[in-house]
Amino acid sequence: MIVRPKPGLWEVAFALSGSILPRIAGRLAVIALIAIAAVLAAEARPGLFAQISAIPFTLIGIALSIFMSFRNNACYDRWWEGRKLWGSLVIACRSLARRVSILDEAERRLVLTGAAGFAAGLAARLRGGDEPAAIARHCEGAPVTAVNPTDALLHGIGQHCLTLMREGRIAPIHHSLIEEQLHLMAQVQAGCERIALTPVPFSYSLLLHRTAYIFCLALPFALAGTLGWWTLLPVLLVSYTFFGLDALGDQLEDPFGLEPNDLPLDAMARTIEREMLAILGEADLPPPLAPEGDVLR
Amino acid sequence: MIVRPKPGLWEVAFALSGSILPRIAGRLAVIALIAIAAVLAAEARPGLFAQISAIPFTLIGIALSIFMSFRNNACYDRWWEGRKLWGSLVIACRSLARRVSILDEAERRLVLTGAAGFAAGLAARLRGGDEPAAIARHCEGAPVTAVNPTDALLHGIGQHCLTLMREGRIAPIHHSLIEEQLHLMAQVQAGCERIALTPVPFSYSLLLHRTAYIFCLALPFALAGTLGWWTLLPVLLVSYTFFGLDALGDQLEDPFGLEPNDLPLDAMARTIEREMLAILGEADLPPPLAPEGDVLR
Amino acid sequence: MIVRPKPGLWEVAFALSGSILPRIAGRLAVIALIAIAAVLAAEARPGLFAQISAIPFTLIGIALSIFMSFRNNACYDRWWEGRKLWGSLVIACRSLARRVSILDEAERRLVLTGAAGFAAGLAARLRGGDEPAAIARHCEGAPVTAVNPTDALLHGIGQHCLTLMREGRIAPIHHSLIEEQLHLMAQVQAGCERIALTPVPFSYSLLLHRTAYIFCLALPFALAGTLGWWTLLPVLLVSYTFFGLDALGDQLEDPFGLEPNDLPLDAMARTIEREMLAILGEADLPPPLAPEGDVLR
Amino acid sequence: MIVRPKPGLWEVAFALSGSILPRIAGRLAVIALIAIAAVLAAEARPGLFAQISAIPFTLIGIALSIFMSFRNNACYDRWWEGRKLWGSLVIACRSLARRVSILDEAERRLVLTGAAGFAAGLAARLRGGDEPAAIARHCEGAPVTAVNPTDALLHGIGQHCLTLMREGRIAPIHHSLIEEQLHLMAQVQAGCERIALTPVPFSYSLLLHRTAYIFCLALPFALAGTLGWWTLLPVLLVSYTFFGLDALGDQLEDPFGLEPNDLPLDAMARTIEREMLAILGEADLPPPLAPEGDVLR
Amino acid sequence: MIVRPKPGLWEVAFALSGSILPRIAGRLAVIALIAIAAVLAAEARPGLFAQISAIPFTLIGIALSIFMSFRNNACYDRWWEGRKLWGSLVIACRSLARRVSILDEAERRLVLTGAAGFAAGLAARLRGGDEPAAIARHCEGAPVTAVNPTDALLHGIGQHCLTLMREGRIAPIHHSLIEEQLHLMAQVQAGCERIALTPVPFSYSLLLHRTAYIFCLALPFALAGTLGWWTLLPVLLVSYTFFGLDALGDQLEDPFGLEPNDLPLDAMARTIEREMLAILGEADLPPPLAPEGDVLR
Repeated sequence: MIVRPKPGLWEVAFALSGSILPRIAGRLAVIALIAIAAVLAAEARPGLFAQISAIPFTLIGIALSIFMSFRNNACYDRWWEGRKLWGSLVIACRSLARRVSILDEAERRLVLTGAAGFAAGLAARLRGGDEPAAIARHCEGAPVTAVNPTDALLHGIGQHCLTLMREGRIAPIHHSLIEEQLHLMAQVQAGCERIALTPVPFSYSLLLHRTAYIFCLALPFALAGTLGWWTLLPVLLVSYTFFGLDALGDQLEDPFGLEPNDLPLDAMARTIEREMLAILGEADLPPPLAPEGDVLR
Repeated sequence: MIVRPKPGLWEVAFALSGSILPRIAGRLAVIALIAIAAVLAAEARPGLFAQISAIPFTLIGIALSIFMSFRNNACYDRWWEGRKLWGSLVIACRSLARRVSILDEAERRLVLTGAAGFAAGLAARLRGGDEPAAIARHCEGAPVTAVNPTDALLHGIGQHCLTLMREGRIAPIHHSLIEEQLHLMAQVQAGCERIALTPVPFSYSLLLHRTAYIFCLALPFALAGTLGWWTLLPVLLVSYTFFGLDALGDQLEDPFGLEPNDLPLDAMARTIEREMLAILGEADLPPPLAPEGDVLR
Repeated sequence: MIVRPKPGLWEVAFALSGSILPRIAGRLAVIALIAIAAVLAAEARPGLFAQISAIPFTLIGIALSIFMSFRNNACYDRWWEGRKLWGSLVIACRSLARRVSILDEAERRLVLTGAAGFAAGLAARLRGGDEPAAIARHCEGAPVTAVNPTDALLHGIGQHCLTLMREGRIAPIHHSLIEEQLHLMAQVQAGCERIALTPVPFSYSLLLHRTAYIFCLALPFALAGTLGWWTLLPVLLVSYTFFGLDALGDQLEDPFGLEPNDLPLDAMARTIEREMLAILGEADLPPPLAPEGDVLR
Repeated sequence: MIVRPKPGLWEVAFALSGSILPRIAGRLAVIALIAIAAVLAAEARPGLFAQISAIPFTLIGIALSIFMSFRNNACYDRWWEGRKLWGSLVIACRSLARRVSILDEAERRLVLTGAAGFAAGLAARLRGGDEPAAIARHCEGAPVTAVNPTDALLHGIGQHCLTLMREGRIAPIHHSLIEEQLHLMAQVQAGCERIALTPVPFSYSLLLHRTAYIFCLALPFALAGTLGWWTLLPVLLVSYTFFGLDALGDQLEDPFGLEPNDLPLDAMARTIEREMLAILGEADLPPPLAPEGDVLR
Repeated sequence: MIVRPKPGLWEVAFALSGSILPRIAGRLAVIALIAIAAVLAAEARPGLFAQISAIPFTLIGIALSIFMSFRNNACYDRWWEGRKLWGSLVIACRSLARRVSILDEAERRLVLTGAAGFAAGLAARLRGGDEPAAIARHCEGAPVTAVNPTDALLHGIGQHCLTLMREGRIAPIHHSLIEEQLHLMAQVQAGCERIALTPVPFSYSLLLHRTAYIFCLALPFALAGTLGWWTLLPVLLVSYTFFGLDALGDQLEDPFGLEPNDLPLDAMARTIEREMLAILGEADLPPPLAPEGDVLR
C-alpha cells in the first residue's frame, strides 16, 4: 500500500513514486513513436489517411471505456474484499482475546499467540512465503502438516478449546463463543484463498488487453490526417489512461502480492501480533512495520 | 478455469489457448466478408451508401455497450457467486472438522468422509454426472434416494449427530455448533442449484444477441462509403469486442460447466477431500488435480 | 421462466417463442409507419427536415440509455432477489427436515407437510391464488385466518415446537435450531411480499416510458432528411432495443407473476413438496412440473 | 407510494397524477421561454449563435448523465433500503409473535401490542409526528422519555422478558430467541434513523443541481442557430428528463416523508397492527389503510 | 455533515456555504485565464488552432467521466459504509443497554458509561484526537494502554461480564447475548479503522487527477478556434464538474475527518452518551451538539 498524503498540485504534476507511469512508460513511448510516424507520413502524402475518420473511433473508445470500467470495478472489488477479510481477522482476534480473558494465563497465551501465528501464517501462505516457519516464530510446537499448516494451527486451537469444555473448565456456551471466532478466522482464510486462487477470467483480461492495444495503435492513423502534430496530445492522453488503468487493474486483481498498491499483509499481521502481546501484558512489543520508500508491505 | 500467468506482450498478441477468438472466428469471418463486399460495392457505385451516415450507429453502439455491460455484469456476478459458494463449502468443511475433532475416530471418519462425499456429489450434480456414484466413492453405505442424493447424505450426517446428542455423547450446544456447519453446506447446495437452474432471462439474452448481430452486420454499410478499405479495422474491432464479450458471458452465465472459463469444481472437491483425509491422519493422499492444457476443471 | 437451450444462430434469427418481439410488435409497426411517412415527406419536400440534425439525438439517446440501464438493473435485481428468497426457502425446508429427523413420525410429518404447505401457500399468495386451499391440499386442519393464512401456518408449527420443548420432548437448544429455520421461512415470506407490494416508483417508470416514446417518435424526423430510406434501419433497431428492454423490465419488476420470464413458483413449490415427501419415506411422489411450451411456471 | 396499475398507452401519454410533471412544470416553462427567445434572436440576427456548436454540449450532457445516474442510484438505494428495513420489522414482529406464542395471554398481549406500538412510534418518529401519542394508542402505560420513546418501549419489553427469564418462567434459550427479534427491531429503528438523518452529501446535490441548471439554460443557445424552431423538441426533452430525475431523486432521498413516491409507513404500521391483533384472537380489526387518490401513505 | 434544508432556486444559484466552489475557485480561475489566452491567440492568428478538433476530446471526456464516476462511487461507498458502521454502534449500545437492564445499578452503570466512552474514544481515535482523555471523561479508572485504548476498554467490559458469569450472577446464555453486542462494537471499531487506514489506491487517484488536469488544460485550445468567446462556457462548466467531483471525492474518501461533508462523529457520540445516561435515569443530560454555521461535526 502506498502511504502518502493527498497529492498537492506539485505531486500531481511531477510525482513518479506511487505513479503507474514508470510501469507503462515503454508502451507509451512506442505509441508516441507510431503517432510521430503517422504524422510524418500524413504530412508527406496528405491524402494518405484522408478516408479514415475519427467517428468510429469515438464509438469504439467509449464502448471500450465501459468494458474497462467493468473490469476495473471487478479488480477493485477484489482488492477491497481482501482488505475487508483482513479487517475481519482483526475483529476475530480481538473478540477471541476478550472471550478467553478469564482463562488461565497458559491457556490464554496458547490462544493469543496462536492468533498471531495464524495471521503471520496466512500472510506467508498468500504471498508464497515459508508458511510453517512464519507460524513457528509465534507459537512453539504448532502442528505442521504438509497440506495446510495455517488451518492445522486453527484446528489445534479448536481441539484444545473443545478439550477444555469436555473437562468442564469452560461452559459449553462459553466454548461456543470462542469457537464462533475461530469460525470467523476460517472464513477469512478461505475467503483470501478464493481471491488469490481465482483470478478474473483469463479470456476477459486478454480480450480487453487486446482491444485496448489495437485501439491505441490505430488511433494515431485516424487523427493524423486532420490534427497534424496535435495528434500526439489525445493519443498520449488516451493511451496513458487506458494502459494506466489496465496496469492498475493487474495490481489490484491480486491484492495479496508485493506490488506497490497491494495490501500491507505483513504490517497488518504485525499489528495483530502487537495487540495480542499487549493483551498478554508483555512490555517490549515488536515495533509496527514502517513503510519502505512510500510503500507499506 | 484457465490457469496461466499474466499475459506478456507476446501472449497478448498471439495467444490462442485461453482466448475467446477461436470460438467466434466463424462469425468474425462472416462479418469480414460482408465488409469486403460492402467496400467493393461502394467502390463500384460510389453513391450507393452515400446517404447512410455513421452518426446513428454511434448512438446505437454506445447504447448497446451500456446494455451489454449490464448483462456481462450479471453473468460475472453469477460466476463469482458460484465461486463464493464453493469457498463457503471449504469453510464449512474445515470448521466442521474442527468442531468434531474430539469425537471418536469412527464418528469423525463418518463426518469427514461425508463432507468429502458431499463436495464430490455436489460437483457431479451440478455437472450432470453420476451423483450417487460420486458420493459412494467417498462414503460407503451412504443413503441413495432418487430425488436428491447429495442432500440425503447431509440428512444422514445430521440425523447421526442428533442421535449422538440424544444419547448424551455430545452436549446440545456442541451439537448446535456442528449442525450450524451442516446448514452452511445446505446453503451452498441450494445456492449452486439456484445458479445452475435459473439462467439470465432468456428474452434478455436473445434481445442483446439479436441487436448485436444486426448492429455488426449493418455497420460495414455505414462506414464503407467514407472509409473505403479502412472499414475493415473498426468493423472487425467492434465485432471482436461485442461477439467476444457475448461468448464470454455465455460461459460465465453457467459457471459450473466444463468450458475453459468455468469454475474448477472437480479440483476444489479434490482439495476438500485432501484436507479432510489429512485431518483424519491418512498418509497417502490423492494428488491435487492438475490442469489439462491450461485448463483446470 | 423460459426453459430453452442457448439460442443457436437459427434461433437468434427467427425464434418467436421466448422473444419479447410479439409483445412490442404493435409499437414497432407504428414507429415504422411514422418513419415511412417521414421519409416520404422528406422526399416530397427536400428542405422540410433539413434543419433538424442527429447530434442532439445522440446526446438524448445516450442519456436515455444510461437511465434505462439503471431501471433495468433495478428490475433485474428484484427478479434475482425473488429467486434468492425462494432458494432460501429450499434451504430452510431441507435444514428443517434434517433438524427434526429424530422426532416421532407424527411430529415429523406435521412439520414437513407444513413446510410443503407453506411453500404452496406462499406461491398462491404471491400469485393472487386461493391461499387457504393451497395450504389445505398439503396439511389437514391447518389454521385458516383471514389476515395471513401462510404466516398462520408457520405460527402453528412454531407453537407446536414450543409445546414439544415445554413438555421436555426436545431440548431448548434443539428447539432453537428448529425455530431458526422457521425464522428463515418468515424472512422469505416477508421478503417476497416486499417485492410484490412495492413496485419501482411509479413516477420513475412513467418518466422513462415517456422519454423513450417521445425519443422513438421523433427520431425518424431527425434522420429522414439525410438518410432517406436507410432511416428505417436505425429507427427500428433503436425502437426494438428500447421498447424491448422496457417490456422486459416490466416483466422482471414483478417476478412472481405468470408472464414467460417470471419465476416458476409452482414448480419450485412442487420441488419442495417432492423433497419433503421423499424424506418422509413416501414412495409415490407427485411428478415435477413440466414446462408448457417452453415456459415453466 | 403511488398505487396504480402499470400505465397503458393512454396513461403514458396523458397521466398527470403520479407524474413528476406538475412539480417541474414551472422550470420547464422557463426553459421553453428561453428557448423561444433564443430562436427568435437567432432568426433576427442569423450569425449571432453561429460560433457556438452542439459538440461540446454532447460531451457535457453525457458526463452529466453519468453523474446524475450515480446520484439517482444512491437515492434509489436509500429508498429501497428503507423498504427493506420495514420489511425486516414485519419479519421481526411475526417471529416475535411466534416465539411468545406459549406465554400467558397477558404476557403475549404486552409483547404483541408493544410490537404494534413500536411500529406506530417509529412511523411517527420518522415523519416528525407525535411519537409518544402514537405509542400510547397501542400500549397503555408505556414508558415515555424525552430522549427516545420508541427505543424506551423496546427497552421496556426487553426488561420484562429478562424478568420472566430470571423468574424461571421461560428458559434462558427461549429468552434469547425472543431477545434476538427485539435486536432486529432495534436494527430497523437505527437503520431508519440513519437514512432519515444523513442525506446524500449536500455539496453533491448542489453541484449536480447547478450543472444541470446551467446545462439546460445554455442548451437552447447552442442549438438555436442550426435547428431553428426544432430547438424546442430536444431542449424540452432533455430538461424534462434531467429535472424530472432530479426531482424524483429528491423524493426518494428521504423515503420516509409524505410525498407521493415515499414509503407508506402508516399503511405498513397498520398491517403490523392487524396481524398482531389477529394473532391475539381479536375479532374486529382496524381496516387496512386505503390509498387517497392514488397515493398510499 | 452539512445540515441545510434542500436548496431552493435561490440557493442553487448563489449558495457558497456548503458548496465545493470556494475550494476549487483557484483552479477554475487558472483554467479561465488559459481559456481567455487561447481565445485571444485564436483571434490574433485565426489559423493557429484550426487543426485541433473537438471530436477526440469528446472521446476522452466521456471515458474520463466513466472512470471518475467509478472513483466517485468508491468514495461515496466508503462514506456510507462509515455511516452504517456508526449506525451499528448505536444499535449495539441500545441492545447492550436492554440486555443488561436487570443487572445491579453499579454493573449497569459500568457497562453503559463504558459504551458511551467507547463511542467517544473511537471518535477521538479516528480523528487523531486524545483517545485516553476522551475515554476517561466518561468512565473513571478505565484501563489505558498505549497500543489500543478503545479496544482495551471493550476488553475490560468483556472481562467484567465473563466474571459475572463465572460467579453465577448471570446465566451463560444471558452472558452470550451481552457478549454478542460487544462483538458488534469490535466490528464497528475495526471497520472504521479499515476505512481510515486504507485509502483508495494512491496510483488510482493520481492517474485520474492527472488526466482530469491535462484534459481541462487542453480543452480551451480545442474549442477556441471555432467557438470564440463562447469557449469559456463549456470549459468552465466541464472544469467545475470535474474538479468539483474530484474535490468532493477527496472529502468523502476519508469520511471521519473534520471537513464539511464528513460524518458528524462527535455529534453521534454525544447522541449515544445522552441515550445511555437517560437509560441510567440521569436527569441533566448534556445537550445534543449543534451545527456550527451549517456544519455538524
